[in-house]
Amino acid sequence: MAVNLYDVAYGVEKAIRESDEFKQLKQMYDIVNNDEGAKRLFESFRNIQLTLQQKQMMGEEITQEEVEQAQKQVALVQQHESIAKLMEAEQRMSVIVGELNQIMLKPLEEIYGSMEQK
Amino acid sequence: MAVNLYDVAYGVEKAIRESDEFKQLKQMYDIVNNDEGAKRLFESFRNIQLTLQQKQMMGEEITQEEVEQAQKQVALVQQHESIAKLMEAEQRMSVIVGELNQIMLKPLEEIYGSMEQK
Ligand SMILES: [Ca+2]
Ligand SMILES: [Ca+2]
Repeated sequence: MAVNLYDVAYGVEKAIRESDEFKQLKQMYDIVNNDEGAKRLFESFRNIQLTLQQKQMMGEEITQEEVEQAQKQVALVQQHESIAKLMEAEQRMSVIVGELNQIMLKPLEEIYGSMEQK
Repeated sequence: MAVNLYDVAYGVEKAIRESDEFKQLKQMYDIVNNDEGAKRLFESFRNIQLTLQQKQMMGEEITQEEVEQAQKQVALVQQHESIAKLMEAEQRMSVIVGELNQIMLKPLEEIYGSMEQK
């Protein structure tokens, strides 16, 4: 691997770290983490989401009770200002990471894309 | 999104495109794609791998026949010099992309990691 490739990757790391979006994400994480109630609610929400995603991926059945529990948690986190803001910040960061990946992986996509079409 | 963040991402794209690893990958893809037999074998191998992966992820049963078919294909592509070299080039590129991602996503990992530990 060329040294240059590592260098530019560290450039992206630095740029992410210095971006407003990252700073806002970090700030909202700190706020939620320092609020015991918010932290517990957010972790519970995350765990339920993760469990449902895994079940879905594995083709396992999701019970009516689980659906209701998940809906209740979604309603709770949406009403919680810090958590709602944290999730918006995560969403923005996730869009950026997706855009960065699309840019950086374009050379590879061109190779794989051309194979599909032929 | 800060302009700087896009700029550095394009820097990575350029560096990937100019890397020896990418050039080798592209060269091997072209060689395989321009050899009708190699291309067909490689596509068939890929399709079988993809089907098995999807079945595994969905928790579906993989038949003995499918396992044998996959093993036969693996043996065939391993014996095929151009395809074997292409797969090695893909493997090297995939390691690099993984390393780049690890570097670039370190800021995010730090946030999520700290949440887990608290
Ligand atoms: Ca809002
Ligand atoms: Ca070899």
